[in-house]
Amino acid sequence: MYVKTISSSTHSQFINITSLIEEAVAESEILSGIVTVFVSHTTAGITINENADPDVKRDMLKVLDRAVPWEDPEYRHYEGNTAAHVKASLMGNSTQIILENGKLQLGMWQGIYFCEFDGPRQRKIQIQILGK
Amino acid sequence: MYVKTISSSTHSQFINITSLIEEAVAESEILSGIVTVFVSHTTAGITINENADPDVKRDMLKVLDRAVPWEDPEYRHYEGNTAAHVKASLMGNSTQIILENGKLQLGMWQGIYFCEFDGPRQRKIQIQILGK
Amino acid sequence: MYVKTISSSTHSQFINITSLIEEAVAESEILSGIVTVFVSHTTAGITINENADPDVKRDMLKVLDRAVPWEDPEYRHYEGNTAAHVKASLMGNSTQIILENGKLQLGMWQGIYFCEFDGPRQRKIQIQILGK
Repeated sequence: MYVKTISSSTHSQFINITSLIEEAVAESEILSGIVTVFVSHTTAGITINENADPDVKRDMLKVLDRAVPWEDPEYRHYEGNTAAHVKASLMGNSTQIILENGKLQLGMWQGIYFCEFDGPRQRKIQIQILGK
Repeated sequence: MYVKTISSSTHSQFINITSLIEEAVAESEILSGIVTVFVSHTTAGITINENADPDVKRDMLKVLDRAVPWEDPEYRHYEGNTAAHVKASLMGNSTQIILENGKLQLGMWQGIYFCEFDGPRQRKIQIQILGK
Repeated sequence: MYVKTISSSTHSQFINITSLIEEAVAESEILSGIVTVFVSHTTAGITINENADPDVKRDMLKVLDRAVPWEDPEYRHYEGNTAAHVKASLMGNSTQIILENGKLQLGMWQGIYFCEFDGPRQRKIQIQILGK
């Protein structure tokens, strides 16, 4: 298992971590199998989405913020970051990518994004590569 | 594969099943690999989120209920539980956790939650532990 | 790894691909392990939900459309399909199913759905079967 750290610089942010995962794959020398990426936090998630136009990330954050606003008289969680917890569960905290010939089998427009919902912070992800 | 049953006691409820998964891991005697937890239902889901303040669960259920209300003149599904189906897909019905040294590699604040959206009911989850 | 193509016929559509996955499982001759289904696109997703009443699919699409409308003055992504990207991430782009005795271990009412959010198009999914 590989542990990598990520630094988010703003409160809500999608960070492309594809190359970080590729690095771990290269270190492992495993050529074919399954890669699990697991976010060890409860106010951040992970998703696979468009790697080209940065406006996609920006739009996604906007839509999520509107669906789950930061402030809400209904929230009771004392830390005040309920919205981050909800968004983390909506995106999910882990993903799997198929590995073949030493390459992540991503579609042409796909990138792997760490989803920060309560930054800036230093975060930790775990990467497991099973195969041979 | 291990099959475990869970009893929900109310209509919408997050139930911490971390210890249930740990039990299956211990029974398997597998020390390192990948654990898949799969909910066999279409009106319940699974998510990994905060294990400390119970208000997080409560707030998450509130936000989901507001985003996908139980009653809605638009719904056509004859069983009347469309909202539960949608919430199940938003949370997802399976999750993976990395296993090392006989321990689930969860972050300090992470718990594994069964998400009941149409209880009370008896439910079934499958746990598969691959590794050695 | 198996690559299968899917043709969506309308803009937003849930397509039951369970039998496509079962086909790949049969071809692989693997009896027990884990099946990963991975959608190689950023405006389509995958989910496991009810396989009986077609109104569930219809209702789910309605709820998603209302939560993330196609038109919105806030969106900046130049292709105009921001909503499809968001819905893809909400459903997720991959899923895992446990395989035993040559059979996908799905619950009685569960089907595997390809979620088209920006069709009609020809789409590609990857299926990996690990085990023996």
